[in-house]
Amino acid sequence: MGLQIFKGNIIFAPAPGELKICARSHIVVKDGIVEGIYERLPEEYGKEPVKDYGERLILPGFVDLHVHASQLYQCGLGLDRELIDWLNDYTFYVESRFSDPAYAREAYSLFADELVRQGTVRACIFATIHKESTGLLFEILQEKGIGAFVGKVNMDRNCPDFLQEETEVSIKETEELIARYGRHPLVKPILTPRFAPACSGELLKAIGDLAKKYNLPVQSHLSENPREVEWVRELFPSHPTYSDVYLDFGLFGRYAPALMAHGIYLTDRELDLIKANDVMLVHCPESNINLASGIMPVRKWLNRGIRVGLGSDVGASHNLAMSKAIVRAVQLSKLLKIFSPRHEKPLTIAEAFYMATKGGGSFFGKVGSFEKGYSFDAVIVEDDPRIAGGLSLEEQFQRFLYTGDANNIIACFVAGRQLGLRCD
Amino acid sequence: MGLQIFKGNIIFAPAPGELKICARSHIVVKDGIVEGIYERLPEEYGKEPVKDYGERLILPGFVDLHVHASQLYQCGLGLDRELIDWLNDYTFYVESRFSDPAYAREAYSLFADELVRQGTVRACIFATIHKESTGLLFEILQEKGIGAFVGKVNMDRNCPDFLQEETEVSIKETEELIARYGRHPLVKPILTPRFAPACSGELLKAIGDLAKKYNLPVQSHLSENPREVEWVRELFPSHPTYSDVYLDFGLFGRYAPALMAHGIYLTDRELDLIKANDVMLVHCPESNINLASGIMPVRKWLNRGIRVGLGSDVGASHNLAMSKAIVRAVQLSKLLKIFSPRHEKPLTIAEAFYMATKGGGSFFGKVGSFEKGYSFDAVIVEDDPRIAGGLSLEEQFQRFLYTGDANNIIACFVAGRQLGLRCD
Repeated sequence: MGLQIFKGNIIFAPAPGELKICARSHIVVKDGIVEGIYERLPEEYGKEPVKDYGERLILPGFVDLHVHASQLYQCGLGLDRELIDWLNDYTFYVESRFSDPAYAREAYSLFADELVRQGTVRACIFATIHKESTGLLFEILQEKGIGAFVGKVNMDRNCPDFLQEETEVSIKETEELIARYGRHPLVKPILTPRFAPACSGELLKAIGDLAKKYNLPVQSHLSENPREVEWVRELFPSHPTYSDVYLDFGLFGRYAPALMAHGIYLTDRELDLIKANDVMLVHCPESNINLASGIMPVRKWLNRGIRVGLGSDVGASHNLAMSKAIVRAVQLSKLLKIFSPRHEKPLTIAEAFYMATKGGGSFFGKVGSFEKGYSFDAVIVEDDPRIAGGLSLEEQFQRFLYTGDANNIIACFVAGRQLGLRCD
Repeated sequence: MGLQIFKGNIIFAPAPGELKICARSHIVVKDGIVEGIYERLPEEYGKEPVKDYGERLILPGFVDLHVHASQLYQCGLGLDRELIDWLNDYTFYVESRFSDPAYAREAYSLFADELVRQGTVRACIFATIHKESTGLLFEILQEKGIGAFVGKVNMDRNCPDFLQEETEVSIKETEELIARYGRHPLVKPILTPRFAPACSGELLKAIGDLAKKYNLPVQSHLSENPREVEWVRELFPSHPTYSDVYLDFGLFGRYAPALMAHGIYLTDRELDLIKANDVMLVHCPESNINLASGIMPVRKWLNRGIRVGLGSDVGASHNLAMSKAIVRAVQLSKLLKIFSPRHEKPLTIAEAFYMATKGGGSFFGKVGSFEKGYSFDAVIVEDDPRIAGGLSLEEQFQRFLYTGDANNIIACFVAGRQLGLRCD
């Protein structure tokens, strides 16, 4: 790939809440890795071609830490329900269609296209229980050039017959997928027990064994809804908390990093476990309000030293765009302040943006920033010059996050490679 | 205009929470007024041409009861502030640009185009203090065919010098606009004191006199933010509540209907006054979370018999689309339920849709429904048949509200007249 030089208005968040804005600057990329940012290009690069994006913004590509690829078709449907009813009445039926590989190929292609269109260049993805269609999802993402962790879902109880796995088959098929797709540089397997209520202790133990054997990361759901938390208490009476269930079975960061979506209702003990095991929580604000789950007290978790990234959680959320997750995270933190006046100050846009770039990107390595040594993952953003012309770069940035959409994203890059869709 | 017949999947809300779904049906319109809906067209119409929209949805056009036309350019900016700071640091500067009619013509044309693009066919609009540019807004809306109440803003204190009016000039210019634009069938004047803190008692009294003299409706802001409520208490110490200020000066439904945006923090006395004077409240959910104002307890107000419509409140909201206001109203009602467990059940999508069509439409007369005698105001909605094909009509409707945008709206009608923009 060699040397690439891009020019434009570069904006990124090297630390939570801190925006670095480099007007009309050059970013030099070597073999997909950022070398440096220069207002004036050093002499050594003087004869290299420059891809000049003019007044457009160059932002780090977005990182979605929690998304269900099978659920894109159901966005916006059945949202008069809460979590458990929504799963039973809607989601499980939608997921059952992925037993058909032809259907899966079409649905997952649309999903991958939509990720790129929305500027999401890295994602941690739940597939379904189906081995063959999950394999297709690996291949489609590889082909598109998106960076991803992909998990075949495991579940062997408390779900409809048509989605319930035999414990041994679930493990065997998971291991087959690991063997087949475990060596790609950008699209990697991740262990994906659906959530504790849908998994027997035997299944959870076996998944923990896979985590150890292959040194594989884990993603699941944790403490999204009070009824769910209560249910876990009933199902695992000998475990003091929901987090202890995952911990006990080796799924809580023991062998490789773990991602837990939601984490709204957590006890002090759990917060300590999360911190001690460096588990990363995924805040999914749109989903949490659609399913009336609650609001994660993000500031409180951050202040305890817990890492928090952002997820779209499509399809409980109806928005795949991470810009919308950023805005919603800020909005919910303001509401938390209103309803719990002693709550710490709301998140700023720059803080939420960090969560959706460098914060979440840390799960992938050096991803989500334009500091030296980071993967050149980027989105190129353009706006209507009749409006953007009069605004500062920080205002243009805010305006894109609040009011922009896929139409404003004219190109995406992962590790220096431009993802196919539109040309500019 | 004569007879028009449209065919498609017709959906509307004749009552709060009630959806009427007429699959592949005809709607007969005479001189812009709905005559009836027929699955099979009666014989008398058998030879008339039918505009067949196929599988597309035909919905009532959206009604936005609270929007600031001057603030479209500032959407998404400065939202780390609350109400009073946001006004002082951002909004007042933006509004001051409308002293230049050339700027206003461009900005208001863009605003009107954007309303149509988003399917908003009727709106209650704040302009700015500037007479000439407010006149242009009347003319641009007339030309586009949008139905609207338009108000020149009045304010004579507690604002920057460059926006502060002389009391007499404010009244004189308001009256001049009424004389000039008072007779159009679709675009009408409305009295628009900004809000009590920005108006002297003398100004409020004079506006009340205009309401009486011309039988004109009134729009303003009421109890949006606790700091604002406290400020009104200090400014009008002899009035027992914020609502009493408007009431005392004849601005609370005495001479003609009144619209009050927000109405979050209301006492029992105020709720009684609102009910007794048939004042309509405007819920603006996106704005209320962006400015950390609070959540209107909509269900509680409805249960007291108060009429509540929906507003975008651009620019404190970053979304002009009323579909987004509908979704956000539902989401906030779910959060209210979480934070005040004794709160009544959340709003359904069908209830919020009613608020944005027939509910808000009642401010304009027989608007917002497809019952016989209603104005044929409509939006035609299309979806990706790869996805919509497998869904029920109610699911297609939900999907549009949650995930759709201007790209899904292929035509808009007001009183039977198609508004210019795209053809299908």
